[in-house]
Amino acid sequence: MSNNQNLVAPQARVLTLLSDFGDRDVYVGVMKGVIAQINPKLTIVDLTHQIPPQDIVAARFCLMNAYPYFPVETVHVAVVDPGVGSRRRAIAVEFAQGFLVGPDNGIFSGVLSQSPAIAAVELTNLNYWRTQEPSKTFHGRDIFAPVAAHLANGVSLEQLGQEIDPATLVQLDIGNCKETATGVMGCIQYIDRFGNLVSNIPGSYVQGKTWFVQAVGLTIPGGETYSDVETGEAIALVGSHGWVEIAINSGNAHLQLQIKLQEALSVISH
Amino acid sequence: MSNNQNLVAPQARVLTLLSDFGDRDVYVGVMKGVIAQINPKLTIVDLTHQIPPQDIVAARFCLMNAYPYFPVETVHVAVVDPGVGSRRRAIAVEFAQGFLVGPDNGIFSGVLSQSPAIAAVELTNLNYWRTQEPSKTFHGRDIFAPVAAHLANGVSLEQLGQEIDPATLVQLDIGNCKETATGVMGCIQYIDRFGNLVSNIPGSYVQGKTWFVQAVGLTIPGGETYSDVETGEAIALVGSHGWVEIAINSGNAHLQLQIKLQEALSVISH
Amino acid sequence: MSNNQNLVAPQARVLTLLSDFGDRDVYVGVMKGVIAQINPKLTIVDLTHQIPPQDIVAARFCLMNAYPYFPVETVHVAVVDPGVGSRRRAIAVEFAQGFLVGPDNGIFSGVLSQSPAIAAVELTNLNYWRTQEPSKTFHGRDIFAPVAAHLANGVSLEQLGQEIDPATLVQLDIGNCKETATGVMGCIQYIDRFGNLVSNIPGSYVQGKTWFVQAVGLTIPGGETYSDVETGEAIALVGSHGWVEIAINSGNAHLQLQIKLQEALSVISH
Repeated sequence: MSNNQNLVAPQARVLTLLSDFGDRDVYVGVMKGVIAQINPKLTIVDLTHQIPPQDIVAARFCLMNAYPYFPVETVHVAVVDPGVGSRRRAIAVEFAQGFLVGPDNGIFSGVLSQSPAIAAVELTNLNYWRTQEPSKTFHGRDIFAPVAAHLANGVSLEQLGQEIDPATLVQLDIGNCKETATGVMGCIQYIDRFGNLVSNIPGSYVQGKTWFVQAVGLTIPGGETYSDVETGEAIALVGSHGWVEIAINSGNAHLQLQIKLQEALSVISH
Repeated sequence: MSNNQNLVAPQARVLTLLSDFGDRDVYVGVMKGVIAQINPKLTIVDLTHQIPPQDIVAARFCLMNAYPYFPVETVHVAVVDPGVGSRRRAIAVEFAQGFLVGPDNGIFSGVLSQSPAIAAVELTNLNYWRTQEPSKTFHGRDIFAPVAAHLANGVSLEQLGQEIDPATLVQLDIGNCKETATGVMGCIQYIDRFGNLVSNIPGSYVQGKTWFVQAVGLTIPGGETYSDVETGEAIALVGSHGWVEIAINSGNAHLQLQIKLQEALSVISH
Repeated sequence: MSNNQNLVAPQARVLTLLSDFGDRDVYVGVMKGVIAQINPKLTIVDLTHQIPPQDIVAARFCLMNAYPYFPVETVHVAVVDPGVGSRRRAIAVEFAQGFLVGPDNGIFSGVLSQSPAIAAVELTNLNYWRTQEPSKTFHGRDIFAPVAAHLANGVSLEQLGQEIDPATLVQLDIGNCKETATGVMGCIQYIDRFGNLVSNIPGSYVQGKTWFVQAVGLTIPGGETYSDVETGEAIALVGSHGWVEIAINSGNAHLQLQIKLQEALSVISH
């Protein structure tokens, strides 16, 4: 019995996929085939497969911003895995909102900075792999997809392998933002398809304040929505992800302002 | 009891998504997460998320050409929304083939020109939103996705908000085609991935006739299928969408003929 | 009663889609709408829709590498169809692992070289089409999608049309690899999104041997995983598809080595 009214029955657990596999090849389709061999009725959601090849930082950001919107007990599989075939660990992690399955390379450190791990295992139980002789280059197909499907089917974390200390999971350091005399300093941590420049400064810093942003010598007014400024003008606002971001109304801030990933910015508020 | 044999039970209602969100970010995945929080077993179909950013005209065209192929009672969500956060209305519309959910900016005016609205509401009932304080920049996640999921779950249109007059919904004028002494004049309204040039002239104008097309000084024979001409040759035919289009057998008409969007063309028939 | 423990009940049959339709247009969404009109609860998996336009060779390769990972009785629909509207046959094929539905242009010849056809029909029974007057340019929507949905629903192959001899199905010749005094010669048959160069030499040729690859005047060591060499270095290995391939650790072999599709390579082993 559970007192969590949002608890989803295991048979309805959702499974998400995130990778750098792109959409030209059949890698993602093949992972879904492996999942369908275990349970063809699982609900699978693609987060994105367009992570730049081997870019764990972008993958970490995307997963961190997506997980809060999924049902409790969702199983999130993330496969950006430059160390595949080397000694990096394959892991599954339980946290308050669900489960994480993938390589232990820091890809989950964004999620776990917001919602800490409850338990973690190294995926050492070969019974839940697709084959006891997995490919050296495609653990997504041979280990992560089948393990995640079994987890979504109700197999417990403990059955999947050897328990490990969550404190030993790999962290990715992406630089913190820090408070200054006049506000906060941070940097651009992500650029989306629209060219919006997403910083690592949480929106809570500007809530209820009058504020503006300084970056690459420009001063950009703080506002609430794109249309607070004229078409073609720059605006800083709290984006839908919850971070301070820089946008251009009906335009592309990345191209037009020439601000790049990791560029510093300051929020000045009073 | 219903006399419509195609009527789908509410629990099996299909939900489609169309947007300009692309596939690099997690925006679409997050909308599906929100839908799964309401009902993880709904069938979701992506129409396309590659609408050029903020291009309502292309979105209107795509939705108009897709809706006829879906089951009755399908819920179509369309989020190309340059006015998000401004005063444009958020709406749901019932029409003979199903439901439309999105911004009131003309994106649905193509569908409704073919199959008129039966009823419409402004989405003012916050109980069906994801949060009572929606993001100023991502109504797809906070308003449209949850409202559509509830609609697909069987919630009635009236419960979603204040009834509005369908005659007040925003229209997009994309230029009409007009009959001439020798045939019909129109323009190119869409270019697909293959470079096929889709006009706004309905195929019914050429049915059963001998005909050809004139555009940018070229004369292009009317036919029935790509292979009516040699490889590399231009042909005009009624495309699968039902509009007169210009194609090149095993080639790219857009690149090879240098015909652009909104270019005028004439169908000459006898 | 069946003695095949992997047999999937018809109502749970999985349906895959592969095409050159891309993701900018609604072609794929429309095919899924047609399938949903027949059964909105079928599980549909996209293999890829980014096959280069009309590239049957790439489609053949992708399907051949994906089918083994799907449940028995899966229905695979492949629509790369430059001959649509001409006299090429529309077919459905039964083989040990499931069903194939699409044009008879060689797109299935890779699958069938590994797992021969059991039976084949030409799709002549109009009762299973979407319309008795199909589009001349979009058989994916009007013939293949509805036929595949009916097949996934449990309709038998024989009902779909006129039986044909599997030996008459179109073959695609992509060049064989051949043994030499010192090893095997072959060619590059596919380049994936990461720039990995996939040859047509099966991995079984190098199993348990010491080996290296020669191509475009380069000598590339044979190994097991990307990280067998330093970052930026080239390595030959047996890729996840099961073919010998050339990769660069954390790099793009296609761009950096200037090796193209169909380039010859030799595996030298002892």
